[in-house]
Amino acid sequence: MADKSRRQFLAALPAAAAVFSPRADLGAQAGAVRIDGRKLRERIEKLSVFGRPAGGVFADGVSRTAYSDADIAGRRFVMDEIRAAGFQPRIDPAGNIFARRPGGSGPPILFGSHIDSVPGGGNFDGDLGSLGALAVLEAFDAAGVAAQHPLEMVVWAHEEGFAFGRGTACSRIVAGLVDRSDMDVVWNGITRADAIRKIGGDPDRILEARRPKGTYHCYLELHIEQGGTLERANTAIGVVEGIVAIDRYEALITGFANHAGTTPIADRQDAMLAAAHLTIAVRDAVTRVPGRQVGTVGQIEITPNSPNVIPGRAQLSIELRDLSSRTLAAMMDDIRARAGEIAASTRTAIEFTQVVSQGAATATTDVQSAIERASESLGLNHSRLPSGAGHDAQNMALIGPMGMIFVPSVGGISHSPKELTHWGDCANGADVLLRTVLEVDRL
Amino acid sequence: MADKSRRQFLAALPAAAAVFSPRADLGAQAGAVRIDGRKLRERIEKLSVFGRPAGGVFADGVSRTAYSDADIAGRRFVMDEIRAAGFQPRIDPAGNIFARRPGGSGPPILFGSHIDSVPGGGNFDGDLGSLGALAVLEAFDAAGVAAQHPLEMVVWAHEEGFAFGRGTACSRIVAGLVDRSDMDVVWNGITRADAIRKIGGDPDRILEARRPKGTYHCYLELHIEQGGTLERANTAIGVVEGIVAIDRYEALITGFANHAGTTPIADRQDAMLAAAHLTIAVRDAVTRVPGRQVGTVGQIEITPNSPNVIPGRAQLSIELRDLSSRTLAAMMDDIRARAGEIAASTRTAIEFTQVVSQGAATATTDVQSAIERASESLGLNHSRLPSGAGHDAQNMALIGPMGMIFVPSVGGISHSPKELTHWGDCANGADVLLRTVLEVDRL
Repeated sequence: MADKSRRQFLAALPAAAAVFSPRADLGAQAGAVRIDGRKLRERIEKLSVFGRPAGGVFADGVSRTAYSDADIAGRRFVMDEIRAAGFQPRIDPAGNIFARRPGGSGPPILFGSHIDSVPGGGNFDGDLGSLGALAVLEAFDAAGVAAQHPLEMVVWAHEEGFAFGRGTACSRIVAGLVDRSDMDVVWNGITRADAIRKIGGDPDRILEARRPKGTYHCYLELHIEQGGTLERANTAIGVVEGIVAIDRYEALITGFANHAGTTPIADRQDAMLAAAHLTIAVRDAVTRVPGRQVGTVGQIEITPNSPNVIPGRAQLSIELRDLSSRTLAAMMDDIRARAGEIAASTRTAIEFTQVVSQGAATATTDVQSAIERASESLGLNHSRLPSGAGHDAQNMALIGPMGMIFVPSVGGISHSPKELTHWGDCANGADVLLRTVLEVDRL
Repeated sequence: MADKSRRQFLAALPAAAAVFSPRADLGAQAGAVRIDGRKLRERIEKLSVFGRPAGGVFADGVSRTAYSDADIAGRRFVMDEIRAAGFQPRIDPAGNIFARRPGGSGPPILFGSHIDSVPGGGNFDGDLGSLGALAVLEAFDAAGVAAQHPLEMVVWAHEEGFAFGRGTACSRIVAGLVDRSDMDVVWNGITRADAIRKIGGDPDRILEARRPKGTYHCYLELHIEQGGTLERANTAIGVVEGIVAIDRYEALITGFANHAGTTPIADRQDAMLAAAHLTIAVRDAVTRVPGRQVGTVGQIEITPNSPNVIPGRAQLSIELRDLSSRTLAAMMDDIRARAGEIAASTRTAIEFTQVVSQGAATATTDVQSAIERASESLGLNHSRLPSGAGHDAQNMALIGPMGMIFVPSVGGISHSPKELTHWGDCANGADVLLRTVLEVDRL
């Protein structure tokens, strides 16, 4: 999807999806609609008890991993809130929770996020977008806004990919990325089928969860940035250009394990020393040209890993992210070239195996513009930026137009109990989501 | 011991140890005595079956870790060989095996090594010095050489320190480095007392295993080099100058764990990147001035150790070895200075904790000269070098004069099944041990 323009993208969709054409204004009434910020905060706080450490407080974050008891209780809470707001939650065969506001015609506008967390996670990642979506449905309903499209919220199951390994987020199932055999995968003693059953899904009908291209007029997701760019620039709203591509490699360095006391420096084939040079080479490759690309050595295992033995083997992860797959390839070329020099100077062998190659998901340009107009109508400054993290939106981009709204993360901290987004920014984000729904409804 | 001259060293011993004064020549008969190289090889090969991997051959090495069944069987084999050679093995309360050749007067000359191995070790580390010692006793006996001192061989128990942690080699007990309470330490489900009992020692009388200063006229140990210096220089005999001092530090690097996708490069506090720079700083500090000093980063653990999270914490080992403790201190000063710069540039904190500070053990200079004369009498070239590895000899240096003889290790490989010393070099080493005993006997 990375390099397709919106025109190409829409052309690739069935006719039903190519619905972006100017329509009549919704009228002045819609311009005044706002979400209830107080209620949004209350719900985020109430949701935070599910998965909170024993004896903890809000600031201690949550461990609400997918399919856990905390996840199931949190989902029940959200469904109760949906009902209390006058809507009817529905669980699809994949375990995702949907709730539609009746009215309008044609494909619905879908918006939402997730409520599962990483272990030791925070209270805003996913929760804001999920409860922000409910706030939008509620605000439209309270104001009696007549949208042209049906409006639908979603709480995706298992976004964080904590269980069953990579590629098992339940929005992928909706995007068609699932086979019946995927249900047989076992994690933590249970099959994926049983995990999905546990949260009210129906693995026997899993293929019915797939939605063809054009099912939705547009998908929107409000999310915390999880980086520090917006906060540092004092920008209220981030307009996501797309979700970055990820290339991940495993580097295997083979040296020779030997006695750390008796082996002279000149005779060493030290895999740890080579790993050190390679780690610095990754940083150098990433920073050599300006840009927002990132690269990380996050994992290392050395053998035998003993203070008095020269490491004979090192295995490390290299993860590169950028919107442009060309940039990723150029960085890796640079790293490979440096690795050749490092192998020669340390008398080791360095081999790379690519273990992840995930394409970028571009946000639809017209939706980006719609988010900008929505922000401006609320007097909120905004800037475009890539999402360095993966989101359910990248899966939804496979079946229709997509846009994402970011709000600032204090200190750029995420996947941590310290994750924090100010309540005012939470409300701003939900209001921009609401206005963007209105803007997109007109397209 | 590091900086004491022999004179100072002897002065520090009780009068009984200060026995190095010229005596009468042993006569021409001793000059022709040689060990039986064929028998030495046979015994090393026979010993190699105890701890050999199932279905393996000699070249597959041994796992004859101390106190294991293989160790016990290997000790039984060696004691049987001692008996077959006409000597009476005796196990001291610490589990060390001694065998004395009667005759002579005054304190005995002791020589030997160990037969325990590291897991996945080789057939020469310790075995050569132990069976070489028996070959020397046997050769003296066969030739009827009348030494002035009693001659005694020893097979030290648990040299490799595999069980019960650092500082539990049984030669330490003989050197006085033991308390009754040390017997209560538990490893692998058994107490040190029971482990010693298992090999025929008597932990209830453990303090009786201690030998006061001056017990031995001299201690000699033949050992493989475990480094590649002798082989590379085509030198037959290494005259050990001393056993290096070891300083070991644990470096704790504290950064901040954050999302590898959403955290811009400029905002990172990457503990792995800091660890990489520190690893290179260690190598730089070691190689900045010429010399035989070595330094190793052999162990690293990073947290959370996940490809998609910037490491927030790294812990790594820094081990420095040299004969001079001043060189060790200078290297560490250099590393600390570099660490300050690294911490600043990576926005991390780096703390060092010293976990090992082991002084050097200098080989007695007169004994070094004796080994040189012994080598020359056999037409073998020799050179002085430090021992980068620890040996039982460093403990014996605490109670009397000490010397070590090294023979070449092919490729400098040790603590590996690939460990190899040519049979000719094994025989040369044992012959130099024999001649050194004669030389020392005259001192």
